Amino acid sequence: MAPVKKEGRGKDEEVIKKLEGLGEEMLEQIKSDSSPTFTTALRTKSNIIFDEGVGYIRLGSKTEERKFVNVGQARKFMQTVAIAAKCKKFLKENAHTSIRGLFYQLKFSLGENLDEELFSEQSESNPLVEDLEVALNVKREDLNLNTDRKGVVAGPLVLRDKFGGEETIIDCTKQGRSGWMIPSDVDNGMDFVEVNADYVLVVEKDAMWQRLNEDKYWKKENCILITPKGQASRGCRRLIRKLASMKLPVYIFTDCDAWGWYIYWTIKTGSMNLAYLGSDIATPEAKFVGVTMRDIKDYNFLSQLTINAKEVDIKRAEEMLTYDWIQKHKDWVEELKTVLKTKKKLEQDALQGPRLSFVGEYLREKIAKHKFLA
Amino acid sequence: MAPVKKEGRGKDEEVIKKLEGLGEEMLEQIKSDSSPTFTTALRTKSNIIFDEGVGYIRLGSKTEERKFVNVGQARKFMQTVAIAAKCKKFLKENAHTSIRGLFYQLKFSLGENLDEELFSEQSESNPLVEDLEVALNVKREDLNLNTDRKGVVAGPLVLRDKFGGEETIIDCTKQGRSGWMIPSDVDNGMDFVEVNADYVLVVEKDAMWQRLNEDKYWKKENCILITPKGQASRGCRRLIRKLASMKLPVYIFTDCDAWGWYIYWTIKTGSMNLAYLGSDIATPEAKFVGVTMRDIKDYNFLSQLTINAKEVDIKRAEEMLTYDWIQKHKDWVEELKTVLKTKKKLEQDALQGPRLSFVGEYLREKIAKHKFLA
Repeated sequence: MAPVKKEGRGKDEEVIKKLEGLGEEMLEQIKSDSSPTFTTALRTKSNIIFDEGVGYIRLGSKTEERKFVNVGQARKFMQTVAIAAKCKKFLKENAHTSIRGLFYQLKFSLGENLDEELFSEQSESNPLVEDLEVALNVKREDLNLNTDRKGVVAGPLVLRDKFGGEETIIDCTKQGRSGWMIPSDVDNGMDFVEVNADYVLVVEKDAMWQRLNEDKYWKKENCILITPKGQASRGCRRLIRKLASMKLPVYIFTDCDAWGWYIYWTIKTGSMNLAYLGSDIATPEAKFVGVTMRDIKDYNFLSQLTINAKEVDIKRAEEMLTYDWIQKHKDWVEELKTVLKTKKKLEQDALQGPRLSFVGEYLREKIAKHKFLA
Repeated sequence: MAPVKKEGRGKDEEVIKKLEGLGEEMLEQIKSDSSPTFTTALRTKSNIIFDEGVGYIRLGSKTEERKFVNVGQARKFMQTVAIAAKCKKFLKENAHTSIRGLFYQLKFSLGENLDEELFSEQSESNPLVEDLEVALNVKREDLNLNTDRKGVVAGPLVLRDKFGGEETIIDCTKQGRSGWMIPSDVDNGMDFVEVNADYVLVVEKDAMWQRLNEDKYWKKENCILITPKGQASRGCRRLIRKLASMKLPVYIFTDCDAWGWYIYWTIKTGSMNLAYLGSDIATPEAKFVGVTMRDIKDYNFLSQLTINAKEVDIKRAEEMLTYDWIQKHKDWVEELKTVLKTKKKLEQDALQGPRLSFVGEYLREKIAKHKFLA
């Protein structure tokens, strides 16, 4: 598989234009004696769709208008405009910050009159920033706002990182025990220089990633080895999406339990809270390589290495069985029913039972034989 | 500051000998018709000391004996011996795993009769592994058991990583936006090749680290820039300890709140649950650079950027004021009393209020003027 499209700093100019466009439009509205207004896609549950045609969660076509003259919206409206102005400044300065940094910049400019909780890094949704993302059709990373980064990669992938006025070549075959840490933004100032892999393997747990990295699994199998370290960050999901767009098959390897299934489906179909990112962040092509309850048939020793399913696993399995798109996958239905029947689950770590290197043998065999769940 | 002592793979042989010694001793005991016994330091609260002379938390001199013939100890004793045998195997194979991987290897060999909770990655203490660490005077990393890794570094530090049969040079000046991820084990198979820094700056939050990294703070100041990403992992604390041992000053930069203070004191004095690692993991030389309530005197704008202290902050401040070693530090007493009086706290992110680059100006000035808390 050969080189690659470039996505460089030019995008900044485009985003600045969009931000300026937002302001100019409002100015026009004021001049023509109408209330400043902006339109954004509705992000409530009623407008979140699992689109079976494309295989991911996205927003529907409902929109909502935010009006400055609406008493209930005026304060938020003003804050959104202030955020847009700050983000333009960050882009002009070529400097990034976090939502928390943005909060303090606004607090400094606007004074005490700010809803702190709205800007908490802990709050899953930062509605004001989301408003901007959706209204302008950009990601917050494009607004120079960093998101929590998590996840690591190793394997035949070379990147060019233009950052802080310098250019660095990152060779993911030369990262030793650590691997390359997946950043918040894998688009802006970040190009793929070389991607010479046969597939992408995403491994739920960092400990398992380290095991496979130590055995040079990625070298032997010529694959790109990623761990999201649990639930995948935005940057990690975006990286997987970009690699899938280069026609690399993506295989996901998690525990056979509620959390593992959730990690898989989130990478594959996206998630409710990031529905507005839709195709940017979902990888419907992804396939589930394991670990599965049916593996016990092929690898007998696993029967003694199951552990008790927890309440959350049982509940999740029951819930998933009610989903339309799960019901279409017979193999998933069977899998979930097995968990419900046996009240047992399997962890990926169990594959280290007979010998530490067994997990690689298992993956090699299952991938070669295309033993996937959809 | 020039090159460096090497710590290579030779250590493995030493650890294997210690493990074999443990077994041989037990064999001798059996041959002489006495019960197999091994001695380990007592790790309960009664034997955990804050040693003011050295400035860190360590175990006292009390020991306890584990006897195979004791009904209450026989099962654990057997498990400890099984763990020792597994670890020897891992060392011989030159392969690492996690506590969870070890659990499944034992479950595979010993069958169902294993206390699962004892081997949970989530459980703070894994008493059986700790028994071995303490009895043999090694760290679990020396037993080829990986611990959770967390934290990132950038700056004038070059390392040689011998891992998985290969050697990689890691240049922490060439890690772009991501930085180099601090691994579980920074001792075995890991040498410092070059450390040409003037000091080490440890920054609580990853978002703040990214801000400083983007501004090339570490380049301008010739320092090593570390973030533990919250509470420091074992590997991160060990790396800071090793850098301090090379006579680099260590400055810690956290929020002015319960969590920030805890991060600082843990790096400085170690922690109760890792008291048995004592000097290996504590950096009593570390100094607290900020952010502090007294900063408001020098940086007036901060007064408008305080936020409300939470109950946990108030409680922690009250608790800290009762500690002997805090009471000896007048500046800390004053700091904590200010939080209690004002019921306000400050986050490091507040330093981005006036401009994103201000945080670097602040650190530069405070470090140049030696404005530290002890």
